[in-house]
Amino acid sequence: MSNKETTEINADLLKERRNCSFDVEELTNVIDGGKVQTDKRREIENLFLNSGLSYDDVPEEYLSPKDRYENAVRKSAILSKIAMDMLEKVTVLEEFGIQSPVLRRIADAFFREVSPFLLHLGMFVPTIIGQCTVEQKAYWLPRALRMEIIGTYAQTELGHGTFIRGLETTATYDENTEEFVLHSPTLSSYKWWAGGMGKTVNHSIVVAQLYTKGECHGPHTFIVQIRDLDSHMPLKGLKVGDIGPRLGFQTADNGFLGFDNYRIPRENLMMKNAEVLKDGTYVKIARHGKLTYGTMVFVRVMLVSEMAFNLAKAVTIAVRYSAVRRQSQPKPNEPEPQVLEYLTQQHKLFISISTAHAFQLTSAWLWTTFTAVLADMRDGNTDTLPELHALSSCLKAICTSDCSAFIEQCRFACGGHGYMISSNLPSLYGFTTATRTYEGDYTVLLLQTARFLVKMWEQVEQGNAVTPTLEYLTRHQNKEIWDESPEGIIRAFESVSAGKVKGCVASLRKHMKDGLDYEDAWQLTTVQLVAAAEAHCRAILSRVYWTETVRVSAGSSSEVRAVLHQLAALYLLYWATERTGDLLRFTTISESDLVNLQERYEELLRKIRPNAVGLVDAFDLRDETLRSTLGSYDGRVYERLMEEALKSPLNQEPVNQSFHKYIKPLMNKL
Amino acid sequence: MSNKETTEINADLLKERRNCSFDVEELTNVIDGGKVQTDKRREIENLFLNSGLSYDDVPEEYLSPKDRYENAVRKSAILSKIAMDMLEKVTVLEEFGIQSPVLRRIADAFFREVSPFLLHLGMFVPTIIGQCTVEQKAYWLPRALRMEIIGTYAQTELGHGTFIRGLETTATYDENTEEFVLHSPTLSSYKWWAGGMGKTVNHSIVVAQLYTKGECHGPHTFIVQIRDLDSHMPLKGLKVGDIGPRLGFQTADNGFLGFDNYRIPRENLMMKNAEVLKDGTYVKIARHGKLTYGTMVFVRVMLVSEMAFNLAKAVTIAVRYSAVRRQSQPKPNEPEPQVLEYLTQQHKLFISISTAHAFQLTSAWLWTTFTAVLADMRDGNTDTLPELHALSSCLKAICTSDCSAFIEQCRFACGGHGYMISSNLPSLYGFTTATRTYEGDYTVLLLQTARFLVKMWEQVEQGNAVTPTLEYLTRHQNKEIWDESPEGIIRAFESVSAGKVKGCVASLRKHMKDGLDYEDAWQLTTVQLVAAAEAHCRAILSRVYWTETVRVSAGSSSEVRAVLHQLAALYLLYWATERTGDLLRFTTISESDLVNLQERYEELLRKIRPNAVGLVDAFDLRDETLRSTLGSYDGRVYERLMEEALKSPLNQEPVNQSFHKYIKPLMNKL
Repeated sequence: MSNKETTEINADLLKERRNCSFDVEELTNVIDGGKVQTDKRREIENLFLNSGLSYDDVPEEYLSPKDRYENAVRKSAILSKIAMDMLEKVTVLEEFGIQSPVLRRIADAFFREVSPFLLHLGMFVPTIIGQCTVEQKAYWLPRALRMEIIGTYAQTELGHGTFIRGLETTATYDENTEEFVLHSPTLSSYKWWAGGMGKTVNHSIVVAQLYTKGECHGPHTFIVQIRDLDSHMPLKGLKVGDIGPRLGFQTADNGFLGFDNYRIPRENLMMKNAEVLKDGTYVKIARHGKLTYGTMVFVRVMLVSEMAFNLAKAVTIAVRYSAVRRQSQPKPNEPEPQVLEYLTQQHKLFISISTAHAFQLTSAWLWTTFTAVLADMRDGNTDTLPELHALSSCLKAICTSDCSAFIEQCRFACGGHGYMISSNLPSLYGFTTATRTYEGDYTVLLLQTARFLVKMWEQVEQGNAVTPTLEYLTRHQNKEIWDESPEGIIRAFESVSAGKVKGCVASLRKHMKDGLDYEDAWQLTTVQLVAAAEAHCRAILSRVYWTETVRVSAGSSSEVRAVLHQLAALYLLYWATERTGDLLRFTTISESDLVNLQERYEELLRKIRPNAVGLVDAFDLRDETLRSTLGSYDGRVYERLMEEALKSPLNQEPVNQSFHKYIKPLMNKL
Repeated sequence: MSNKETTEINADLLKERRNCSFDVEELTNVIDGGKVQTDKRREIENLFLNSGLSYDDVPEEYLSPKDRYENAVRKSAILSKIAMDMLEKVTVLEEFGIQSPVLRRIADAFFREVSPFLLHLGMFVPTIIGQCTVEQKAYWLPRALRMEIIGTYAQTELGHGTFIRGLETTATYDENTEEFVLHSPTLSSYKWWAGGMGKTVNHSIVVAQLYTKGECHGPHTFIVQIRDLDSHMPLKGLKVGDIGPRLGFQTADNGFLGFDNYRIPRENLMMKNAEVLKDGTYVKIARHGKLTYGTMVFVRVMLVSEMAFNLAKAVTIAVRYSAVRRQSQPKPNEPEPQVLEYLTQQHKLFISISTAHAFQLTSAWLWTTFTAVLADMRDGNTDTLPELHALSSCLKAICTSDCSAFIEQCRFACGGHGYMISSNLPSLYGFTTATRTYEGDYTVLLLQTARFLVKMWEQVEQGNAVTPTLEYLTRHQNKEIWDESPEGIIRAFESVSAGKVKGCVASLRKHMKDGLDYEDAWQLTTVQLVAAAEAHCRAILSRVYWTETVRVSAGSSSEVRAVLHQLAALYLLYWATERTGDLLRFTTISESDLVNLQERYEELLRKIRPNAVGLVDAFDLRDETLRSTLGSYDGRVYERLMEEALKSPLNQEPVNQSFHKYIKPLMNKL
């Protein structure tokens, strides 16, 4: 059932929808990339969700972690079965890609957290595709896609995450038996975190230090069977189990894995990029590095898009709730206003609508850039790779971090009710905040971008050409003349970034002049380098968001174009007012310009206000996917809060046994 | 067993402790307020914790919410029994106050979240003390203290939190039976959130609109019996139950309560401030308002102190982990450094050590201010009350908000392992972030402070005297001359606050000149008003922290005095570098001053580095209270992570039943 078929709709929401200045369906089509895409997406959503199989009688948050896991496995099996049946009819994988947003919408309807099978499709299958030889792929891929084997990806260890070269697990080749011997020499070398490893999978990709003929060749990937396919018993020589509860991903079944001289066939080394011959000879294939790199960038593109989706969910919940919720009485004898009327509430929420659009457009743009780089690489040109790496690193860091922060802001904007699990905001935050750490920690990634920035600065100093996204460094040697147009604000952000990079270079040189070597000077400058990389990323986001908005809205009605431009302008003004110190340092902006900037920002909030509900409706998120008492399309907020509460097992009996066992004896001093 | 008796200590932590420049015990005494207080605290901690009764065989996070609740009741009964036994020996309540930090340390050892009895001592008893007549108190208080009755406090409704005047629950006096009739006219009028209401309590304070003779007298407090004392069955005319899972407070048993013309005796109105006579005559006692106000300020003082405690816990965990964790290899052939060596890590963590001290000293100072105001009020002077209100409002808002944000920063600094529930950082955040909302929402409280700031600004304009904490408004009519000393930085923050208040007043007047009335102009200025109140609060925190540091460290050894001054200086420099835009707008600070500020900040991080472990050790938090695999005194991080994981019920059997039920059929296409 689509949201709109619900009969009883909150009167305030009805009014909001009546007053919306643009056609919501048109905007939905723009977001989806066209009417055809919207229709196709809805068709698939109907297929998976109209059956009601995604629904739990007892919501999963009332279960113990163990029961919750078992329920998640049950539903993963249902979901997998529908997906495989469907695959025989339509080739969704081709049309939408494995990690398509439509699958995410469906998965979120099935699980408040995630499926224990998440890494099977998310990492196991892509790694097979990316790192196996043709023969290996022919063996493993069909089995994995038909789910005859279920796998995960085990890289991180208890003692090492960021520093891959420091991994301790060893894979030593034994030419006598033509096997690799996997071993965990220490407790800290145990694999830790792999989703599904705890109790679910029977195979795993394992990253280990490869040794042949006494020589270490660094980390390589292997396919390892973990459990017996028939009995599911862990195989001899392995220690495997669940790592215990986490802040989020509570049904992801994250696990640990330790090896006691565990043997696997030579063929289980994934040999697309490096081979070990029967006699133990190590053969490196030339393109190694570049293509594994490709998978990493691909994952980051997807993450940025996922952040857009998570934020769209959070702000849909918060905006609808803010239209229903009424509170306080600023003027006597007038009714309590919708909290959406308060400027402070608009300030908390509307930036998240803008940011969801910004991330979605940036993800698409990054994808285009990425495919161009891939094409270059196929032609043997790897010049554009470092730029793409620097770009994807900082975008991953900033988009995951901003998304988490804005989801929390949406939650704060919902007051006490945002603290209820049934609002779905806490789970959304718990899930999203993990992305700040995995696939590259925030600080580490920004410092990688900073390395590139400093290098490019030195190129500019030497009068050399630099890559397109950093071409702005050549234009900003002095204070930028302030100009309040969108293009002017973007140029100001670029000049802030350039100014900060310049400051970092000065700091590095000062420390080196004091006698430090480059690496020590670098360490002492890292706080400023992180800030410079952040500034660079904000400049990129601003320019891409604005440019892409102008581009994608060109064919729209004037009403839709107007709101898309308002949202992009809001983004620029929001970050300008957030970064007054930077603007004062690196542009000629004056005190009266700042006052003017603040006024324009506040005016824009008020302009967007009447369309706020329409703007979040346009994300077209079904109630099943939102899973929120506060955010459903019909706005039955208080009714749903109570309905969900009444499902609590604690409410199924008038008196809990703990009264007789503990409270009564205490009251009566027995 | 105190932490220090553990035998096996991580080598890096041993080295850190050997290299600490000051006597940790001396600093602990300073934090506790003297050696006598430290000894007394430890004595009580030993009494409650040495028995091992706080310990769970199966950690509570592995249970279902229902089992977890029952386990929390079991342990609450144990804790209450020890407490009541102890009360007969020592008069802890007198010596430490009901909400004393020592009790918090003990409660945290018993519960990862909180006790379902939390609001009995935290709100039910204090409200009886604060709002009952002498006769009422004589009846209720002994019963409550002996736990013959167990109560909570029900004010917030589904539809109203912030706006108390909007509460919908009615209490209508019936002079025929001399009873009040409590009624919930709508779903949104159901009480919602009261801790312990779900299944635990048998009494509750209830706030309802009082009606006598057809006239409404606004919200008043009543004592209401909820459940039968013998059978624990909810009484007829009530609908009561659990509200379902929350982000934190998971064992707090928060509940809802609805009334269907439920009758209570006339005597159950809490009559210290207002009385209803038998014939229904309403008699207001003059001092009404002022004293209930007192309870509110008291709760805020306690909250600021609690934030200091929560942050001390988080940073103890993160600093110890950062001393044990080694990662990356900035220089080839050198060992991986402790992550505490990284400047970015120091930047993330040390501000939290400073802030824990800042909040503790500010809470104590606020308490002193508060008792002075109380003394004034007893003399009939209420002039100082508005200042205290403005002060406690913004301090509550900023301290809870900063504390939550810094706890998350501590968690981020622990990477993936910080995401484990066993680190205790997620629960600490979940608990703390609630304080941003309850007892006064962040934005609402800052706007209350802003009202006072604007009023005081107008007083200054008219040449009138203003209250001491706002006396600085008279000094900052123009840009402050920048001076990099501590006093200079504090003055700069004051000038920032003054400048922002001035800007708000200008904005208000501009809107009014455009034809708006005051309230509409106020609404349109609220984003800037919130920022002004925040700036005021940061100025207060900076001055109080610095002044109190100088005061309390005066009698210390030079080593302890040095580190306390370093921490306070770090606080000033941190916020100065965070607020460069404000400093550039409202002081004469130059670009080279800013560069210099950043350098001094980074130098200070490096100076504090060798003492970081000693500084968190000085908070003297027992492992039982920290409950963290990452933060224990002995630093056995990886061992504890694995030990906790192995307790998972999922790890008690090699194959989970869901394999046979769901996974195998899927693999075999059955």
